[in-house]
Amino acid sequence: MAANIPHTGQKRVVIIGAGFGGLKLARKLANSPYQVVLIDKNNYHQFQPLFYQVATAGLEPSSISFPLRKVFQGVKNIHIRVAEVLKIDAESNQIITSLGEISYDHLVLGIGCDTNYFGMDNIKKYAIPMKSVSEALALRNRLLQNFEDALVDENPDDIEGLLNIVVVGGGPTGVEVSGTLAEMKNQILPKDYPELDFSKMNIYLLEASPRTLNVMSDASANKSKQYLEKLGVIVKTATQVKDFDGKHVYLGDGSTIRTNNLIWAAGVIGNKIEGLSADIYIRGNRIKVDRYNKVEGYDNVFAIGDIAFMTEEKYPNGHPQVAQPAMQQADNLAYNLKAHIKNKKLKPFSYTNLGSMATVGRNLAVVEFPFYKFQGFIAWLVWMFVHLMSIVGVKNRLLIFINWCWNYFTYDQSLRLILKAKEK
Amino acid sequence: MAANIPHTGQKRVVIIGAGFGGLKLARKLANSPYQVVLIDKNNYHQFQPLFYQVATAGLEPSSISFPLRKVFQGVKNIHIRVAEVLKIDAESNQIITSLGEISYDHLVLGIGCDTNYFGMDNIKKYAIPMKSVSEALALRNRLLQNFEDALVDENPDDIEGLLNIVVVGGGPTGVEVSGTLAEMKNQILPKDYPELDFSKMNIYLLEASPRTLNVMSDASANKSKQYLEKLGVIVKTATQVKDFDGKHVYLGDGSTIRTNNLIWAAGVIGNKIEGLSADIYIRGNRIKVDRYNKVEGYDNVFAIGDIAFMTEEKYPNGHPQVAQPAMQQADNLAYNLKAHIKNKKLKPFSYTNLGSMATVGRNLAVVEFPFYKFQGFIAWLVWMFVHLMSIVGVKNRLLIFINWCWNYFTYDQSLRLILKAKEK
Repeated sequence: MAANIPHTGQKRVVIIGAGFGGLKLARKLANSPYQVVLIDKNNYHQFQPLFYQVATAGLEPSSISFPLRKVFQGVKNIHIRVAEVLKIDAESNQIITSLGEISYDHLVLGIGCDTNYFGMDNIKKYAIPMKSVSEALALRNRLLQNFEDALVDENPDDIEGLLNIVVVGGGPTGVEVSGTLAEMKNQILPKDYPELDFSKMNIYLLEASPRTLNVMSDASANKSKQYLEKLGVIVKTATQVKDFDGKHVYLGDGSTIRTNNLIWAAGVIGNKIEGLSADIYIRGNRIKVDRYNKVEGYDNVFAIGDIAFMTEEKYPNGHPQVAQPAMQQADNLAYNLKAHIKNKKLKPFSYTNLGSMATVGRNLAVVEFPFYKFQGFIAWLVWMFVHLMSIVGVKNRLLIFINWCWNYFTYDQSLRLILKAKEK
Repeated sequence: MAANIPHTGQKRVVIIGAGFGGLKLARKLANSPYQVVLIDKNNYHQFQPLFYQVATAGLEPSSISFPLRKVFQGVKNIHIRVAEVLKIDAESNQIITSLGEISYDHLVLGIGCDTNYFGMDNIKKYAIPMKSVSEALALRNRLLQNFEDALVDENPDDIEGLLNIVVVGGGPTGVEVSGTLAEMKNQILPKDYPELDFSKMNIYLLEASPRTLNVMSDASANKSKQYLEKLGVIVKTATQVKDFDGKHVYLGDGSTIRTNNLIWAAGVIGNKIEGLSADIYIRGNRIKVDRYNKVEGYDNVFAIGDIAFMTEEKYPNGHPQVAQPAMQQADNLAYNLKAHIKNKKLKPFSYTNLGSMATVGRNLAVVEFPFYKFQGFIAWLVWMFVHLMSIVGVKNRLLIFINWCWNYFTYDQSLRLILKAKEK
């Protein structure tokens, strides 16, 4: 096996990870003097903010997954490789992948984060993560199978376990998924399963800190909590999850909740690749970088996005681990790489907060722009507009838009399939 | 475990299988005096004529999979159970399923057919079937993974094996899938994989009998062969496949073709459920029924669709195993079941041939109505119209239509994802 990258004489930038940062960087380096190798475990970019829509059968996986080869059709200096990166050998400027070795002149880590179980083995074993399209799809299959199972079960305790859902983590993902599940429960499930008694189904949102949506203001947090409770979600803040045995969630106050379904959106931890100095990591496995996204102690290794830990005066604890910093860092790094080749002056990165938002169900959202905060239906329209505009490709945008409009007016979807590829 | 079907005092019709026949029958019995139990292994109906579109990344699985619970929303006399049927106990009028026993007054078998490997174990082991959405999806994943693998392979023999595709079976499925693959090869793959040399990729269509499209006229068969060859498919009729070891296809004339990918669309065999008399089966495991679709030797057991073998004067070898006879039989059986409850006279079934059609690639098809045959672009429009009209649900029809129009004008899709649900 060999990675088979042609030798063109160009300086080579190897980008690991085609998330928001890696994808943006590759796009910015398209048709530049560099040869770019973009490596990802999947042959597609995943639009993470909408994973919860796949999990709740609101969107097709393909609506939020973008084949990398299609994105870069006709771009000659970009080479895509679907591979696992096993090790970095910074001494000899190469990485070792499942397809063999790839040498680099500049290496960019956009490897992102995965679910953080905070060392709790039982939770890792039994809880349901939602950090990839594949995981979201598995969650969709599982929830639908639960209703099928509940239908033919006669034991009230079993039924409780099948129907109840506990979402842990009061960030945007937790708020969005619990809100959407509550809407499903209210509007769609009783129509699909008239034989089931959905008054027995409880949806919980648990958050360890005193409030939800910690990245947003008190007003937005309160409003979103109010919306969630209106939809029927049982929101419990200052509530710690101690353990989960696949049937009961054990809380910090000694109480338990009966459920088979614990959706874990409580935190993330950086993905790690062997080979770099241990000194570069801080808590959560983030990698310390300077204002040029250069990894501490290395000359030609960079990190961008969720995995990168960069401090600015306004961000002493690093940037929020969301799409915007990743994309802005990619922009800046692309500028610097191009400047470098022309021996021009490099530009230090500075984060521009464009605001944050979270949606709660069908037509309620909370939006905070740096200059203005608002909530409700208009906020939901803004949320939708911003997300549509961020999505790659005209067609997907149009189809998602039609899907959403349809969903909005009919309150119904045709995606409630328990569907798995049948490998031989 | 119990199947938990409520007792309503109504006579109960149990339908096994939600294919074209079973689904149609259930729809016709909606809001009738019967209680209907519709059982399928999946929670969705599969639109079989378009499996090849899923396999070639032209359509989303959800565009051709229809959740049964959504189809029957608001219909009170229909109970859906996602279950495997293990055994029929006709003595005591009940079936044994993976969810427990279900009793019936009338039992209808719409269990369809699966891939027939004609007893060739190696082919069963290594060939790729295409008789379900799940299998079509697995085929899509596999073909795309092959291109990724070919890209990093340096052994010409390996590359040949990865790129070449042999389709066996010259019926509509074989014609459609080989034609679409040839179009992918010509139009899309060189853009996605500029580093691969697609002149090395060969697509074969093999058929044991002297011609393709045996259900259609010589003129249509010739025309479709001509279209396929224009697209670059190597069509070999009167060619028998003897064996396949996962790397070479061994033909009747002693020659071999190097490929890892043998798509098997050469024939079907009826699905079998334990418990019925061995006397009812004829070749291909089809079940002998009378003109009322009643299974030979039983009073209240019926079979419809592909699995049913009914002879008429014009059809001494039974009806073609396609959607139309299944749907027409379902119609007739629904009429008879309703007549039975009112003690009215039953109607014997008689098949009305509405014609047949097959498409070859983007804008060529062959269509045969009973009164008129034609080919080419107009035939393709008719093919598209008929298939769109057959598809359940306004929204899916609209989205598929937009998809197809887009596909037609841009010659490109965004579905080339290697995507699997990640179960824990």
